[in-house]
Amino acid sequence: MSNKKQHPSALHEKPGISPPEIISPIAVAHIKKFRKIQPSPKELVEGILAGNITALSRAITLVESTNSDHLAKANEVIDACLPHANKSIRIGITGVPGVGKSTFIEAFGKHLTSLGKKVAVLAVDPSSTISHGSILGDKTRMEELVKDENAFIRPSASGETLGGVARKTRETITLCEACGFDTIIIETVGVGQSETAVHSMADFFLLLKISGAGDELQGIKRGIMEMADAIVINKADGDNIRKANLAKVEFNRALHLFPAKKSGWIPTTSTCSAITHEGISAVWKTIAQFLELTKENNYFFEKRKEQNQYWMLETINEQLKLNFYNHPKIHQLLDSTKKAVQNDEISPFAAAQLLLEKYFKF
Amino acid sequence: MSNKKQHPSALHEKPGISPPEIISPIAVAHIKKFRKIQPSPKELVEGILAGNITALSRAITLVESTNSDHLAKANEVIDACLPHANKSIRIGITGVPGVGKSTFIEAFGKHLTSLGKKVAVLAVDPSSTISHGSILGDKTRMEELVKDENAFIRPSASGETLGGVARKTRETITLCEACGFDTIIIETVGVGQSETAVHSMADFFLLLKISGAGDELQGIKRGIMEMADAIVINKADGDNIRKANLAKVEFNRALHLFPAKKSGWIPTTSTCSAITHEGISAVWKTIAQFLELTKENNYFFEKRKEQNQYWMLETINEQLKLNFYNHPKIHQLLDSTKKAVQNDEISPFAAAQLLLEKYFKF
Repeated sequence: MSNKKQHPSALHEKPGISPPEIISPIAVAHIKKFRKIQPSPKELVEGILAGNITALSRAITLVESTNSDHLAKANEVIDACLPHANKSIRIGITGVPGVGKSTFIEAFGKHLTSLGKKVAVLAVDPSSTISHGSILGDKTRMEELVKDENAFIRPSASGETLGGVARKTRETITLCEACGFDTIIIETVGVGQSETAVHSMADFFLLLKISGAGDELQGIKRGIMEMADAIVINKADGDNIRKANLAKVEFNRALHLFPAKKSGWIPTTSTCSAITHEGISAVWKTIAQFLELTKENNYFFEKRKEQNQYWMLETINEQLKLNFYNHPKIHQLLDSTKKAVQNDEISPFAAAQLLLEKYFKF
Repeated sequence: MSNKKQHPSALHEKPGISPPEIISPIAVAHIKKFRKIQPSPKELVEGILAGNITALSRAITLVESTNSDHLAKANEVIDACLPHANKSIRIGITGVPGVGKSTFIEAFGKHLTSLGKKVAVLAVDPSSTISHGSILGDKTRMEELVKDENAFIRPSASGETLGGVARKTRETITLCEACGFDTIIIETVGVGQSETAVHSMADFFLLLKISGAGDELQGIKRGIMEMADAIVINKADGDNIRKANLAKVEFNRALHLFPAKKSGWIPTTSTCSAITHEGISAVWKTIAQFLELTKENNYFFEKRKEQNQYWMLETINEQLKLNFYNHPKIHQLLDSTKKAVQNDEISPFAAAQLLLEKYFKF
C-alpha cells in the first residue's frame, strides 16, 4: 500500500485557496459609481439650457473629441443650442506673453461679474498642444475668477491645425451662450495667425500692450494693430504711469494712420492696471459704447452674419486642402516637387498643375 | 428654220462674264503679308533670349490667353525661360490712386534706364477687367518711359480672379527676365488684396504716399504699411515740402511700432517729387543698400525660394476652391446654405460638412 499521491506531471497543481482577484469588487463598485453613463445629446442640451456647468463641460469635451462618433453627437448638441445662442457680447483679447493677459482678464472678468454678468473665458492657442497651454493652461493664474460661480474658464482646445482649434472654440462659444453666459472673452497670444481667427469670432477686439518694453516684446504680427477696436496699455501703475501715458499718445497717433473702420467706430487707447484696478471699469464702458453704436448702425448684426458665412467657407477651404495634402499620391510627390520649384527647375504654376492632375485623376 | 434659242427652263443662265470675287486676291496677299504664322514655343524662346520685344509680347499674350491650347504652349515657353530668369531685382510699388504712381514710376524708370538698366513695368490689377485698366491702361501717362528703348511697359493682365491675374503677372516676370530686363517694377493699387500678391513676387516693397491728404486717400488696406521696405512720400514740391517732411517723421515713428523684419532691413522713409526729380535717385540708392544687405545675409535668395513655393501652394489652393465652388451640385446648394448659416439655422461647421459630403460623394 502506498500512501504516495500520484503526480502525473510536473505541471500538476495542488488545490489551494484561489488567488485574490486583481481588481477588488469594492473598488469596481466605487469606480462605477463615478463613471456616469455618457449622457445623450438631448440630455446635454437640456442641461446646458438649464445652466448646468457639468453638462456644458461634457458637451465641450464632445466638441473637442476627435472620435467621429462624438462629432455627430456634438453637431446634434450644437444645432439644438443654436436658437438659444448669440445673445452675448464676444470680446477678443490679444497681447504677447508678458503684457499680463491673465491678470487683466481676471480683474476685468471680476468687474464684469460684479455688474451681474455671466462671463466665459475661452482661448485659441494652437501651440498649446506642444506647450501644453501657455495660456489659460494654469488656472491658478486666475485664482479669483476661477472661484466665481458666474465665471467659466476653459483652456484652449488642442489640435493639429489652427483651423481645428478655432472651430472647436467657436462651437464652444455657442454652447456657452446657450448655457446663459452673456459675456464671452476669447483670449489669444499676439504672435501668430490665431488673431485673425479670434477677430473672426469676436464682436470687439482688444489689444493689450505695456509701455517701456523692447520691440521684441511688443512684436505683434502684422495687421493686429489694425484689427484693434481698443488698445489698452496695461501695468500703468507705480513708476510706469508716465511711460504708459506716453505710449498711449503714441499708439493713438499710430491708429490715426489707419483707414476708418467699417463699423464707424474710432479705436480708443487707454491705460489700466490689473493690479490697482485703475482703468478696468473704463474698458467695459468703452465696449458698451461700441455696442451701442454698432447695434444702432446695424454693423453688429451684419458682422455676425458675415462671420457665420466666413466660418462656413473657411471650414470648406480647410477641408479641401486637408483632403488634397493628405492624399497618398500627393503626399508622396509633394516634397520633391517643392524642391524642384524652389530650385527653379519647374515653374510654380506648372508644378501645381502637375500635382492637381494627379489628384483629380485619382 | 427657227433661229430661236431653246430655253429649257426659267432657271437657264446665259453665259456671261464671271462676277468679281468678293475678296480681291490683292487684298488677300496684303493681309497675309501681315498675318504672320503663330510662332512655335521654340521660336518664341529663341526670340526672348535674343532680347526680341515682339517675341516677348507674343509670349505674354500666350500666357494671358484663356485658350487651353495656348496654356500648354505658354508653359513650354516659361519652363524653357526659367533657367535664364531670376537675374533681376523685382520692385513692388503700391499706393492709392492720387499719390502719383504713374509719374513716380516714369521718373524712377527713366532714372534707372539712365543708369544703364533695362526696366520692365508690369501691373497687378484684378479690377482692370471692369475698369479697363485704372492703372497702366493709359500708357500716355508714362510718355517718356514708353519711348525709352530700354523700358518695356505692359498693362495688367485681365482675369476674373486675383489669383489668375497674379499668376499671369508672375509668369510675365519670368519672361521679361529671360528677355534681359534686370529691373522689374510691379505696380498695384493700394486698396485691395493685390498687395499681398505683389508682395509675394517682389524682392523690395515700396509704399507711395502723399502728405496732407485726408484719411480716405491714405486709406490703404490692413497690413500694407507693415509690408513696406520703404515709404516714399511723393509730391514733396512747392508748398508741400514742409508737410511732406512732417509726414515722413510721422510715418517713421509709426514704422518703429512694428516688429523687426526677418530680412534684417530697417524700413526707410523719404520724400520725393516726381516732377522736380528731387529724391528719386535716393530711392534707388535705398534699394541698392537693401540688395547689398539681403544678398549678404542670404535673405534675398531664401525669400525667392519661399516665394516659388508660396506660388505653387497658392495655385493649388485656388484650383481646389475653383473646382469645388464651380461644381454643379455645390453651385446649386451654396446660396441657400449660406442663408441658413447667416440666419443661425445651422452651424457654419455642420453646413460645411454637408456641402463637403455632397462634393466628395460625387
